[in-house]
Order: sequence, then C-alpha cells, then structure tokens
Amino acid sequence: MPHRPFLKLTQQRVQGLLNEFLPKETQAPQRLHQAMRHSALNPGKRLRPALVYATGEMLGVERSLLDIPALAVELIHAYSLIHDDLPCMDDDDLRRGIPTCHIAFDEATAVLAGDALQTLAFEILSSEPRLNISAESRLQMLTELTRASGSLGMGGGQAIDLEMTDREIDLKTLESMHRMKTGALIDVSVKMGYLASDLRDEELMGLLGVYSQSLGLAFQIRDDILDIEADTETLGKPQGSDQEKNKSTFPALLGLEGAKLHASKLVDRALDALHQIPYNSDNLAAFAQYIIQREY
Amino acid sequence: MPHRPFLKLTQQRVQGLLNEFLPKETQAPQRLHQAMRHSALNPGKRLRPALVYATGEMLGVERSLLDIPALAVELIHAYSLIHDDLPCMDDDDLRRGIPTCHIAFDEATAVLAGDALQTLAFEILSSEPRLNISAESRLQMLTELTRASGSLGMGGGQAIDLEMTDREIDLKTLESMHRMKTGALIDVSVKMGYLASDLRDEELMGLLGVYSQSLGLAFQIRDDILDIEADTETLGKPQGSDQEKNKSTFPALLGLEGAKLHASKLVDRALDALHQIPYNSDNLAAFAQYIIQREY
Repeated sequence: MPHRPFLKLTQQRVQGLLNEFLPKETQAPQRLHQAMRHSALNPGKRLRPALVYATGEMLGVERSLLDIPALAVELIHAYSLIHDDLPCMDDDDLRRGIPTCHIAFDEATAVLAGDALQTLAFEILSSEPRLNISAESRLQMLTELTRASGSLGMGGGQAIDLEMTDREIDLKTLESMHRMKTGALIDVSVKMGYLASDLRDEELMGLLGVYSQSLGLAFQIRDDILDIEADTETLGKPQGSDQEKNKSTFPALLGLEGAKLHASKLVDRALDALHQIPYNSDNLAAFAQYIIQREY
Repeated sequence: MPHRPFLKLTQQRVQGLLNEFLPKETQAPQRLHQAMRHSALNPGKRLRPALVYATGEMLGVERSLLDIPALAVELIHAYSLIHDDLPCMDDDDLRRGIPTCHIAFDEATAVLAGDALQTLAFEILSSEPRLNISAESRLQMLTELTRASGSLGMGGGQAIDLEMTDREIDLKTLESMHRMKTGALIDVSVKMGYLASDLRDEELMGLLGVYSQSLGLAFQIRDDILDIEADTETLGKPQGSDQEKNKSTFPALLGLEGAKLHASKLVDRALDALHQIPYNSDNLAAFAQYIIQREY
C-alpha cells in the first residue's frame, strides 16, 4: 500500500507548514489567531494537499514548489469547515473529535476565523517567495482556486445543500451539488499540482480532470456510507447525523449496496483515466483505492 | 466642489460594474446570488472605488484599467459589511436604509454571500482580462488587497472591535483598531490606483500612504460623530447605535469638539502630503474635505 506512508508524510509536512504560516497565537488579535490555529491545525486526513503533492511529483515537480499550493488548498478547506459547522448552517459541535470553532471560541470569532483563513490562502498564493514559479502560473493557480471556492464552486455547493435540506432530490441534483460542494476543491487540488509543473497539455489536463472528478464524487459517497456504518468515535462526529438533519444521501437514493457499487464504478473510472497518463501514477491510484476503503 | 460630480460618476460606474460582474439572480444557486446582489448593489458612497479611480487617474492611468481593482475593493467592503451585520457580530437590521442580508434572506445565506463576495474579489483580480497590466502588477495588487483584508488588516480590526466592546480603551488602542478595521481598506484603495500605474516610486508611495492613512482615520472619526449628531433617516441606520452597543468612540474619549478637531487635523495632514506630490491631486484633496463635511 504505497499511499499510507505518502499520506503520513504529507500530513506531517502540512502540519509543519500550517504551523509556520498561520499567525502565532501570541500575535494580536490573539483570540482570532488562536481560533484560526485551533481549527486549521486540528489534524485531518489532508487529502487535498496530498493530491497536490502526488500530482505535482508525478509530473516531476519538486516537493518544495508544491508546499504553497498544497497549503492554500488546505486553508480553503479549513475555512469552509468552520463556516459549515456554524449554528446557522450544519450546527455541528464536534469536528475530528474536538469542539468546533464556534464552540471552542464563539460564533463571531468563528465567522472571522473562517474569513481570515480564506484570505490567507490567497495571500500566500500571491506573495510567498517559496513558490518559485512564473507570475503567470501563480495567477493561473489563483484563478483556478478562486473559481473552485466561489459561488459556482464550493460555496455555491454549500448553498444548494442548505436549500435541499428537508427536500427529496434526484440523483442528478445530488451529484451536481456534491460536484460543487466537495468535488470542486478536490478537482482543483489535482490542477494545482499540474499548474506547478511546466506542462501545459490539454489532453493530460482532461485525463487528470476525469480522475479528480470521479475521485471527488466517490469520496462523498464513501462519506455518506460511513455516516451510516461507522461509529461516532471513529468518525470524530456523531454517526447518523445526515439522516438526523434530513439530508439527501447516496445510500438513501441508491440503497447501501447501490451506493457502494456506484462509488466503486467511479473509482474504476478514475483508475482508467490514470492508465492513459504516461507518468507513474501509483500514488494517485492508491488514493483512489483508499477513498472507497477508508473507515473515517 | 470637484468631488461631487466625480463621486457621482464613480457611483454610476461601480453600479454598472457590479451589475455586470456579480452572478445573475437567475443563475443557480439563485438564493445565494440574490443575496450577493442585494447587499453589493445597495447603493453606497463607493468611496473606496472612488479613491482607486482618483489616485490612478492622477497618475495618468486610463479609467478602464482601474475598473477591476476598484470593483475588487468594493466587493471586499461589501463582504465585510454583510458579516459585520450578522447577529453574532453587530446584529444590525438595517444598512443604507434597507434590510441587512441576514434579515432579507437568512443567516446561513448571509455567511455564504459574504464568503463568495470575498472570493469573487480575488477571482476578478487574478483573471479578468480587462485588467490589462503585467502579471507581476496583478500579483502586487492581490498581495496588497489580501494583506489589507486579512487577520492583520480589516478582519483583525473587526476581531479587536468585538474584544473591545464593553471595555474602556485608550485613544492609541482605538486608533490602532480603526487603522485595521476601516483604515487598511481605504489605504489599499489608494495603493491599487498607484499599482495600476507604471510608477514604482518609494517617496510617492510614502506620501500617498500618509494621505490615505490620515483620511481613513478621519473618516472613522466622522462616522463616530455622525452616529451622535445625525438622525436615523439620514444615516440609513439607527442613530446612537455605537453608544447603545457600548462601543468606544472618538467623541467618548475626546469629547464632540475634541473629536472634530482631531479629524480636522488629520485632514490637514492628508492635504499636506498631497501638496508634496508632483501631480494634480485636486480630486484626492476634495475627498479629504468631503470626509469631514459629509452628513451621512
């Protein structure tokens, strides 16, 4: 299983980068900076940065050139989790086993911490000298990351998710919501790795897109399955919370076995795209396998 | 009074640009896009875009090259107002005479609308072709705007403001809070106009900084004074709301006349900096006068 050490290495590296680039807890405004660190440093899977590294390294990019885009994507993810957890949104008290930002601090601080993590993502992408690539490539990264995060990407997906709560929706609508809500950021993580390379190859980008979009959807389906099958301790959040919130899920629409089959087909599609790429895509393939096997 | 037609022209131009660049109300997710438009299109003074235009044009930049930075600054301002108005923050129901975003829609939509307006500001700055400047200058704009908005700028200022509520603070702390909360965005508006030009002149930038930082503080002091003197109808929000919220203000620390004198001295400092600039700074000077004369 080549992905386990890779994921572990990524987690350590991302933790170090977050620690370095997040403002210190002793720096004013301290409560805001404590809140930003509380949420962003809470150890997660760091799947999105791992995709940046795996894609970039596959294409021959040095790891150190991938740090800033990997960090930027993780900061956007961290900001979105803080805001999604707010009482006016999903109203979650626990995230990865520790109190969510508005519980550990307060709602106002959580809103501001999310806001500032978003800003920080774009700040490091536009200014950090360690990202030693052309100004044009930096701007491409910024363009892709803003598009993936905004009202036609992740943010819009969350808005649709809220609108859909308590309503019955069909598979197509559910997929399209998740393509925005979680898929866009997973997709752009792969793109960031690609943009850090010197390659500009439409066909390669297309294949990587099939991979990342299939992976993103499979990831979400696995999330829905785990919400039913896993226990609260393993998940770090209450089991069965989707059902309790009247959220549409893939198992609700397809049945548990149907959902597993659908995820498995998406992973096959992702692997098939990788087979057509003339680079060693072992790490990316291992991620795809991991996505449907993971237990949390 | 050269500034009145200039401000009016700016307001019309910014309104047109917002209308063009904000996602349409008919585009999904519709409720989110309606909320973004509701707040951003609510006609305001558009002071920050006006500073971008006035500074850029003073330095010989074509108006059309200033549209995108002017719009980006206004989008950041609009996002900050939506989040500042939230129940967990200042809990305001009215803004410029119309219901605030969470009143007209709901809290979750207001959080997401603010989030997406922030993202849109950075998206247009990084990608809009109408901003026909070098990639390096674009990145400088992005760097300055992210720094001015983040946890060491506007967002941090709002966090300090919340921490300071119900506490007695001294003039130095109050000034430093406002330099972040409102000053940073006014300062960066002038910088954006400068960065749109080809000039890179440390002395000029220094003088423009003295101007914009003095102006930003004078603007806030005038805000505090208007909160006491103006009536609710003129302000578009309840008069006396600072006092009611136990917020420290300049009149509370300096007295009403003392605050007016302080604002007036800051405007003199701003004008003095302009006199040392070898360009026709009439429009910028008129803004400084307007800042302490305005009635809303």
